[in-house]
Amino acid sequence: MHELEVKKIMAGVRSGKINVDEAVRKLKFVPFEDLGFAKVDHHRALRKGFPEVIFCQGKAKNQVVEIAKRLARNNSVILATRATEEMFTAVKKQIKNSQYNKISNTIIINQNKKIMKTGKILIASAGTSDMDVAEEAAVVAESMGNKVERIYDVGVAGLHRLLNNKKKIEDANVLIVVAGMDGVLPSVVSGIFGKPIIAVPTSVGYGASFKGIAPLLTMLNSCSPGVVVVNIDNGFGAGYFASMINK
Amino acid sequence: MHELEVKKIMAGVRSGKINVDEAVRKLKFVPFEDLGFAKVDHHRALRKGFPEVIFCQGKAKNQVVEIAKRLARNNSVILATRATEEMFTAVKKQIKNSQYNKISNTIIINQNKKIMKTGKILIASAGTSDMDVAEEAAVVAESMGNKVERIYDVGVAGLHRLLNNKKKIEDANVLIVVAGMDGVLPSVVSGIFGKPIIAVPTSVGYGASFKGIAPLLTMLNSCSPGVVVVNIDNGFGAGYFASMINK
Amino acid sequence: MHELEVKKIMAGVRSGKINVDEAVRKLKFVPFEDLGFAKVDHHRALRKGFPEVIFCQGKAKNQVVEIAKRLARNNSVILATRATEEMFTAVKKQIKNSQYNKISNTIIINQNKKIMKTGKILIASAGTSDMDVAEEAAVVAESMGNKVERIYDVGVAGLHRLLNNKKKIEDANVLIVVAGMDGVLPSVVSGIFGKPIIAVPTSVGYGASFKGIAPLLTMLNSCSPGVVVVNIDNGFGAGYFASMINK
Amino acid sequence: MHELEVKKIMAGVRSGKINVDEAVRKLKFVPFEDLGFAKVDHHRALRKGFPEVIFCQGKAKNQVVEIAKRLARNNSVILATRATEEMFTAVKKQIKNSQYNKISNTIIINQNKKIMKTGKILIASAGTSDMDVAEEAAVVAESMGNKVERIYDVGVAGLHRLLNNKKKIEDANVLIVVAGMDGVLPSVVSGIFGKPIIAVPTSVGYGASFKGIAPLLTMLNSCSPGVVVVNIDNGFGAGYFASMINK
Amino acid sequence: MHELEVKKIMAGVRSGKINVDEAVRKLKFVPFEDLGFAKVDHHRALRKGFPEVIFCQGKAKNQVVEIAKRLARNNSVILATRATEEMFTAVKKQIKNSQYNKISNTIIINQNKKIMKTGKILIASAGTSDMDVAEEAAVVAESMGNKVERIYDVGVAGLHRLLNNKKKIEDANVLIVVAGMDGVLPSVVSGIFGKPIIAVPTSVGYGASFKGIAPLLTMLNSCSPGVVVVNIDNGFGAGYFASMINK
Amino acid sequence: MHELEVKKIMAGVRSGKINVDEAVRKLKFVPFEDLGFAKVDHHRALRKGFPEVIFCQGKAKNQVVEIAKRLARNNSVILATRATEEMFTAVKKQIKNSQYNKISNTIIINQNKKIMKTGKILIASAGTSDMDVAEEAAVVAESMGNKVERIYDVGVAGLHRLLNNKKKIEDANVLIVVAGMDGVLPSVVSGIFGKPIIAVPTSVGYGASFKGIAPLLTMLNSCSPGVVVVNIDNGFGAGYFASMINK
Amino acid sequence: MHELEVKKIMAGVRSGKINVDEAVRKLKFVPFEDLGFAKVDHHRALRKGFPEVIFCQGKAKNQVVEIAKRLARNNSVILATRATEEMFTAVKKQIKNSQYNKISNTIIINQNKKIMKTGKILIASAGTSDMDVAEEAAVVAESMGNKVERIYDVGVAGLHRLLNNKKKIEDANVLIVVAGMDGVLPSVVSGIFGKPIIAVPTSVGYGASFKGIAPLLTMLNSCSPGVVVVNIDNGFGAGYFASMINK
Amino acid sequence: MHELEVKKIMAGVRSGKINVDEAVRKLKFVPFEDLGFAKVDHHRALRKGFPEVIFCQGKAKNQVVEIAKRLARNNSVILATRATEEMFTAVKKQIKNSQYNKISNTIIINQNKKIMKTGKILIASAGTSDMDVAEEAAVVAESMGNKVERIYDVGVAGLHRLLNNKKKIEDANVLIVVAGMDGVLPSVVSGIFGKPIIAVPTSVGYGASFKGIAPLLTMLNSCSPGVVVVNIDNGFGAGYFASMINK
Repeated sequence: MHELEVKKIMAGVRSGKINVDEAVRKLKFVPFEDLGFAKVDHHRALRKGFPEVIFCQGKAKNQVVEIAKRLARNNSVILATRATEEMFTAVKKQIKNSQYNKISNTIIINQNKKIMKTGKILIASAGTSDMDVAEEAAVVAESMGNKVERIYDVGVAGLHRLLNNKKKIEDANVLIVVAGMDGVLPSVVSGIFGKPIIAVPTSVGYGASFKGIAPLLTMLNSCSPGVVVVNIDNGFGAGYFASMINK
Repeated sequence: MHELEVKKIMAGVRSGKINVDEAVRKLKFVPFEDLGFAKVDHHRALRKGFPEVIFCQGKAKNQVVEIAKRLARNNSVILATRATEEMFTAVKKQIKNSQYNKISNTIIINQNKKIMKTGKILIASAGTSDMDVAEEAAVVAESMGNKVERIYDVGVAGLHRLLNNKKKIEDANVLIVVAGMDGVLPSVVSGIFGKPIIAVPTSVGYGASFKGIAPLLTMLNSCSPGVVVVNIDNGFGAGYFASMINK
Repeated sequence: MHELEVKKIMAGVRSGKINVDEAVRKLKFVPFEDLGFAKVDHHRALRKGFPEVIFCQGKAKNQVVEIAKRLARNNSVILATRATEEMFTAVKKQIKNSQYNKISNTIIINQNKKIMKTGKILIASAGTSDMDVAEEAAVVAESMGNKVERIYDVGVAGLHRLLNNKKKIEDANVLIVVAGMDGVLPSVVSGIFGKPIIAVPTSVGYGASFKGIAPLLTMLNSCSPGVVVVNIDNGFGAGYFASMINK
Repeated sequence: MHELEVKKIMAGVRSGKINVDEAVRKLKFVPFEDLGFAKVDHHRALRKGFPEVIFCQGKAKNQVVEIAKRLARNNSVILATRATEEMFTAVKKQIKNSQYNKISNTIIINQNKKIMKTGKILIASAGTSDMDVAEEAAVVAESMGNKVERIYDVGVAGLHRLLNNKKKIEDANVLIVVAGMDGVLPSVVSGIFGKPIIAVPTSVGYGASFKGIAPLLTMLNSCSPGVVVVNIDNGFGAGYFASMINK
Repeated sequence: MHELEVKKIMAGVRSGKINVDEAVRKLKFVPFEDLGFAKVDHHRALRKGFPEVIFCQGKAKNQVVEIAKRLARNNSVILATRATEEMFTAVKKQIKNSQYNKISNTIIINQNKKIMKTGKILIASAGTSDMDVAEEAAVVAESMGNKVERIYDVGVAGLHRLLNNKKKIEDANVLIVVAGMDGVLPSVVSGIFGKPIIAVPTSVGYGASFKGIAPLLTMLNSCSPGVVVVNIDNGFGAGYFASMINK
Repeated sequence: MHELEVKKIMAGVRSGKINVDEAVRKLKFVPFEDLGFAKVDHHRALRKGFPEVIFCQGKAKNQVVEIAKRLARNNSVILATRATEEMFTAVKKQIKNSQYNKISNTIIINQNKKIMKTGKILIASAGTSDMDVAEEAAVVAESMGNKVERIYDVGVAGLHRLLNNKKKIEDANVLIVVAGMDGVLPSVVSGIFGKPIIAVPTSVGYGASFKGIAPLLTMLNSCSPGVVVVNIDNGFGAGYFASMINK
Repeated sequence: MHELEVKKIMAGVRSGKINVDEAVRKLKFVPFEDLGFAKVDHHRALRKGFPEVIFCQGKAKNQVVEIAKRLARNNSVILATRATEEMFTAVKKQIKNSQYNKISNTIIINQNKKIMKTGKILIASAGTSDMDVAEEAAVVAESMGNKVERIYDVGVAGLHRLLNNKKKIEDANVLIVVAGMDGVLPSVVSGIFGKPIIAVPTSVGYGASFKGIAPLLTMLNSCSPGVVVVNIDNGFGAGYFASMINK
Repeated sequence: MHELEVKKIMAGVRSGKINVDEAVRKLKFVPFEDLGFAKVDHHRALRKGFPEVIFCQGKAKNQVVEIAKRLARNNSVILATRATEEMFTAVKKQIKNSQYNKISNTIIINQNKKIMKTGKILIASAGTSDMDVAEEAAVVAESMGNKVERIYDVGVAGLHRLLNNKKKIEDANVLIVVAGMDGVLPSVVSGIFGKPIIAVPTSVGYGASFKGIAPLLTMLNSCSPGVVVVNIDNGFGAGYFASMINK
C-alpha cells in the first residue's frame, strides 16, 4: 500500500465515508494473503520493483505450488530459486508458461510475451564448478529485465583468459564475479577495471575453503576498492542487487 | 522426594521405627527407576511442575518405548520430542492415547480428558521453513496447559505482515519468536512491543548462516532489551520456558 | 505515540482542523528528540514500561550527559550502564540525585523519593570475579522496582554452598544465574529447583573459555529445561528481562 | 597507461622511432613512482575514476607524508583514512589545503576550489557509537563528489525514529546502513524501502558480537534482497562503492 | 627392542661376533612388520604395556584383517575400535576367539582364558545417548584388566540419580565421566567427590553443541580441579588412560 | 561434612537432643564461611584432600587477603595462583610464612615445617617460554607433597635433548608435558615412553597458534594413547591432577 | 604466449604486415580454447612447465571428457585428480592410454612411451588412512617426472618405524609428509633430518580434529624450521610443488 | 652427534677402551648445553645446515644473551628474531659484531668476514605495512647465504606495479610472497610465473581479516598450483625454507 492509498483513506475520513475506527484498521498494511504456513506478500512489487521471489529450500512441494499460484495472479514474471525438478513438475501442472533452468535450479514463470532487457550486467566465474551459482545470478538478472553476458572459467590460474575478455567487461555497467576456493578473482578484476563489482563466494573447494568461508573472507578484505559481497552461493542476491543498480 | 518426606523419615528415626543407618540411606534421593540404559526420573514433575520429556534423538526405538511406559504410569501427559514416525508406531502399540505431530516430530501421550489452557503464548515465525521448530514450541506449550496462538511467515522482508497482527501480539503474555537466516525478527518485535520475548534461532538458511550460528548471534546481541535466547532449533526449550513464566 | 493519539488525529481530520497532508505527516511516529549524534527515545517508557537505558560504552562523555539530561526531563528513574567514573562526574554536575555503583559501573538517577519494590528476583554467581556482571543485573532489577537477593560465589566446586541457600532460592519468582569459565551453575540450579532461570555467561576465565564462549555454549546446551540465555556479560539484559516476567 | 598511449607506441614502432626491444619494455605498465617502501599508483585515477586512497594504519608517519606528496602532484583531491592526528600534523606541514576529520580519522587534501556534488547518498547508523564508521563513509562519498545526508541513531530499538525519516530515505539513490551489535538495521530498512543498500557491520558491541562478526553474519544472511556487505568497520569501502553506483 | 637387547649387541661387538657396521644397523629399532600400507608395531606392548589397538575408521576391511592377524601372533588380547560388523565378520573368519560389542563397535580378540581384573574404574554417562562412547571406554578398560562399573543416565537434570550412586563412586579408584550437550556432569561429580576424573565429551546434542565442542569447552574449563579431558567421543583414550593410572 | 557427622546428628535426633526441624537444617552442608563476595570452602580439604586454592585473576587485592586469612586458620598449606606481586605484598603483611614464586606468579603459604614429598612427577616443557606454566604445575605438585623433577626446553626441534633425559623420565610415575606453538611434545613423549601424560597446551606462539588453540587441538588428537589434556596455560590443573594420581 | 611471439608481432608491425589495431588485439593473450563452461589453458605448460591438471570435483562427467580431449591434443601427459571411476570410464572411451589409480582417484593419460624420472622425492604418511592423499601426491610427482619413494604408517605412536627408514629419508631431495589427527609427523621429521618438508594435513580423524583443522594448525605452527604447508588433503599441491623444487 | 662418532664409540667398545654400560650411555645424543631454562642445541648446524635461531618472543633479556653467547662460540653466524632493541643492547655488550635490523626486529651476529651469497630469492610484498614480515624473511635468507631482491607494495589494487617487475621475478629461483588483508598476491603471481612460491600471510588488515586468518585461508586455497604456505607473520620460516631449496 503506498502513499496514494493513504491519502484516499484520509479523504474518505474527511468526507465521512470512512469512520475513524475503520480508518485506523485500514491504515495497517494489508496487501498480503494468508495461507497459514505463508503470508504471500503482494505488496513487494510496489515496494521493491519486483515481486516476492520464492526461496524453495526447506519448503514442501505443495507449499511452493500454492505460493506460486497466488503470486501468478498479480504478477507477470515469477521466480522460484533453489527449486528441485519435482517442485517444477508440480508447479508446471498448475501454471503453464513455467520453465526450469537445470543448472541454476530455478523456476521461471513468464506470463509476459517478452521481457525488455536493457543495460549490460557481466557475470564472470573463476571455475567451471561455480556455474550453478553464476547461472542463478544470470537467470535472476535476466528475469528482472537486464541484458546479461557470461564469461566462465577465467580464474587467475590463467589470467590471460580474463584479460582476453577485456572488451566485454568494459562494456558492462556492473560486474558480478563468482569464485570459490581462494576467491581472488574479484580483487584482481577490481584492480584492473573501474567497474562496481558484486562478489559472490561459492562453497566450491575442499579442506580449508570451509564451504565458502575462505573466498568470503578474501572478498570482504579485498585490497581494491569497489567490491561488495553477498552470502556464500547467493547468486540470487547478486543478480537482484545488480539489477537494482543497473537501472 | 520433598521436605515432607524428609520430616517423616526424621519422625521415624525419633520414634525408633527407622534406625540410623537406614535413615542415612533413605535420605539419599530415590524416586527414579533404573532401566540400565536410562534412569527414569519420576521426581521431575514434583520438582519442575512437568514430567521428564523424552528427547528421542540418539535413542533406540525400544529405549523410547520403555521410558514412555514407565513415565505413563505416574503422569497423565507425556511428551517425546525429535521422535521419528517409527518410534511413534512402536509407542502407539503399547500406549493408546498416543498421538503424533508430523511437523514438529513430537509424540504426545494425553491420558487426561482435556488439558486446561490458560494465558496466551504467541508464537511468531519469520519464514515457512521455520515451522517445524515453531510447532515444537507450540505443542510443548499446549501440552503444558497454555493457550497458544501462531503467526507464521511474518519476517521483515515484508514488515507489514507483522504489523497487521499487532492485536494478537498485544494480547499475549509471552512471545516466542522463531527465525533462521539473519534472525532479525525478535529484535524488531521487541523494538515495537513491550512483551518478554524468547528468541529461537533455527538452522534454516545456507552459506554464512552456518546452520544457525548467524541468527543465534543476532539474537544474543539484540539491541532491544527484553529478549532472551535458547539453543538453535530448540522449540522445546522455548515452549517450556514460556509455559513457566506464563503461570 | 499510541492508539489514543492516532484517534485524536483522525478526529482532527474529520473536523477539518487537521488537513490530510498534515495528518499523513503526523501519523509517522514523532516522540523522540534529535541531538544529531543521538535520537533520544522518549517513547520507550510507554512502549516497554521503562525509559531508554543509556549504554555508555563507545559514547563520548558529553554525549552521555546530553542524553541523560533529555531523558531526565520526562522520566523519574534513569539508568546508564558501562559508565566510567569520569562520565559519572560529568553527569553529576548537571543532574543531582545521580549515584554511581562502582562494581557494576552503573549510573542511577533517581528523582523518585523511593522505588516500590515487589516480587523477589534472586541473583546467584558462580565466583567472586563474576560480581560486576551480577551487580549490573541487580542494579537494573532494583531500579525497575523489584526486590533483589544476592548469593555470590556458589559455584559447583563446592556445591553445598549452593544447597545451603535453598530457602532463598525457593522464595524467588525468577533466578538470574551468572557464571564464567565452565558455566555449569545454571544447569545445576535448574536440575534442582523448579524456577525459570536467566543464565548470564561471563568473560571470566582464561584459555579455552575464549572470553565467555565456553559458558555461553554450556548454557545454550543446558540439559535441564527452564534455562534461557543472554549475551556474554549482559547483566543488564538479564535484570531487564527478569523484571519483565516478575511483574 | 591507456589505449591511446599503446597506439602511440605502436606508431613509434612502425615509424622506426622506437625499436622493437624498447617497445616491448614500454608495453609493460609504468605509471607508478617507486619510493622503495611504496609504489605510488598514479594510474589509479584513470583506471578507477579516483586516485589511490592512502590507508594509513600500519604505515609510518613519514611514509604517509611521502605518499601524500607524490599523489598531490597529479591529483586535486587526496584522501587518507585511518590517519592519526600526528600523521595529519606532519602532512599539513608539507601540503596546505589539508584538513582533518576527527570523528572519522580522515585527512582530506582538496586542491580544488569546490567539489561538485550530485545525486544523494543517505547514510544511516543504528547507534551513536557507529558514528566514526558512518562518518568515514560520508567523508569518502563527499570527497568523491556526492551529496550526502546522514540519519544517525535510528536502530530498531525505537523503530519510529527510522520511519520518521522516510522522506529522506526515499529521496536517496543509494543507502549506506551502518550497524554493530545485532546488525539488523539493513534488513529492516531493506524490507521497507526499495533502495539498494550497502550494509556496513561495525565492531561496536561486546561479548557475542565478537568485534563485528555478529552484525557481519546478520547482514550477509539478510532475508530481504537488495543488501550487499563490506568488511567490518569499512566505511571507506561503502562510501567508495556508493559513489561508483551513484554516478 | 629394550635395553637387554642393546647390551647383547654390545657384547657381540666386544666378542667380535658382530662387526661395527652391522652393530650400527642393528641399533636402529626393528621390531615392526611392514605390510606396505601399515607397519605393525610389535614393540608397542613392551613400550606401553598393551599391544597396538587397531583404529578401524578409514581402513579397508582387508587391512584390518591383516593387521589383526599379525598382532594376534604375538599378543594374547587384541582390540579393534570403530569397527563395523562387516569388518568383524571378516576378522572372525581368520581368528576365532573374536567377539564383537555392538554398542561400542569394538572387536575383542581374547586368546587368554580369562583376563585378571583388579582395581575399580567407574564409568558414568550423562544420558542414554552417550552409551556407545561410555561402552568403548568400558570395553577397553576391561580388556586391559580392570574391573569396571557403569552408572548411565545420571545427568544433572535429575541430580539425585547421581547422588544415589555415591557408594559406587567412592569405591572406585578413577572415574570416567561421559557427557554430551552441556557437558556439565564431570564438573559436578568433581565438586562432590575427591576422585581423579577423566572427562569424555561426546558429539551427542544439536545446534550450539557443535558436535561436541560445547561439552569439550565446558570440561576444559571445569572450575573444580581434578578433571582432565580427552578428544570428543574418545572412549578408547579414556579407558586406556584410566587403566594406566589404575595400576 | 562427612558421613560420621551425619550419623552424629541422627543420634542426636534419636536421643531427642536435636529436634526434627533443627536436624533438617543441619543436614544441609554448612562448612563454609560467607564473606559476601566469597564463600570460603573449608570443606574442600576433607572432600578433595587439599584445601581450596585461590584463583587470584579477577579478584581484588583485599579479596585475596581475606580469603587467604580464613583458609590459613584451618589449613597448614595454602596456595594462590595467578597472583600479582602486589597481592603477595598485601598477603605477606597479614600472614608470615608467605612466599612468592615470580616465574609462576604463585603465593605459597606453608605453615608446616616441611612438606613430605613422595613419588616423582616429571615436568617437561618444549620451550623456554613455557616455563611459567610449567613452574605453576611444579609449585602446585610440590605443595601437595610430591617430588618434582623438571626438564625444560626439550622440544622436538632437537629431539636428542629429550632422549638424553630418558632415565629421568622412566623414573617418574606421571609426566606433565607442557608445550605451546605446535604442541607436539606430548605425542612424541607418549610414543616413546609408557607413562601416563598430562598434556598442558600454552598460549606461547603467534599467528595460527591462536593463543593456544593449535597446541590444544594437537594434544586432544594425539595419535598415541595415554595422553589427557587440561585447559590452555592450566599448569595448576595439571599439577593437581598429577598429584591425585601419584598417590 | 611468450616473449618470442611478442617480438614476432612487433616485427610484423614494423614491416607493415600487421597494422596497429590488429597488433593491439594480438597483444592480448590468446592461447586458450573456449568450451563455454571452461576455457582450456593451452598456455599453462609454457608458463608453468606442466599442462593444466583437471580438478574433477564439481565438474560433470562430460565436462571432464571434453577438457581432457582438448588438453590431450597438445600435451603428452595429462592428469585429472579427484576423478570418479565413472569419469574414468567415460574418458577411457575417448582417449586410450588412460589409466586410473583407485587409491588416489586419479586419471593419468600418458601418451609418452616412458616418463624420465630423476631426483628422489620421499613421501611419508603417519597412518594407513592417509594413503589416498599420499598416493595423490605420489602419482602427481611421478607423472611430472620425479622418482618417488613411499614410507607409509610411520606415525609417532611408534617412532622407531620412522627411524628405521633413516637411509631412505636421507637419500631424498624433498620430503612430503602426510598426517591427519594430531599432525605431528612433519615437526618430528624436521627435527631429525635436514630436508625441506612439504606438510600435508589430512581430514583423517574425528572429534576435535575438525576435518583437518587440527593437523593444519599443528603444521603451520611447527617449532622446527624447514616445514611449509598446503591445504587439507591437497596431495596434488604437495606433489606439484615438490616436483618444482626437485628440478 | 653423527655417524662417525657412533663408529668411534663402537671401535672403543671393540678395543675394550669403552665398556658396554658406558657405550650405552654415550649412544644417547649429547651435543647440547643445559642452561636450566634452555638446552642450547649445538647439534643443529650439523643436522640442518644452520645453527639454532633464537626466537626471542617470550624469553627474558638475559636468557637471550646467555643463549646467544653459547651459540656464538661454535658458530660464525647467529640470528635472533622478534628481538626488542633492549635485547639487542644487552647482546651487543657481550658480543661485538652484533647488528640490529629495526624493521624486522632481528639481531644478526656475523663473525664471518663476509657471507657468500649465491642464487636469487625474490621477496614481494603486497603493501607497505607488510614490510616488517618481508624484511624478516630477507634478513634470514641473506644470513643463510642467499642473494635477495625485494619488490614491495605490488598488491593487485595496481597490478601493473607487479607486471613491471617481471624481469626481476623471472631471474629468481624461488619467490617469497608476503600479503595481509585479502592475501591474493601469491595466487596472482603463481598464475603468471612458473616459480615455486612460499606464501606468507600477515596480520595486517582489520575486521574480517581476523589478524591474518583471511590471507592464510586464501593462500591455502590457491587455485594456482606451486604455492605453499607458512604461519601468519612467519617471515623467518619463509626465508629459512627458501634458503633450503635455493641450494
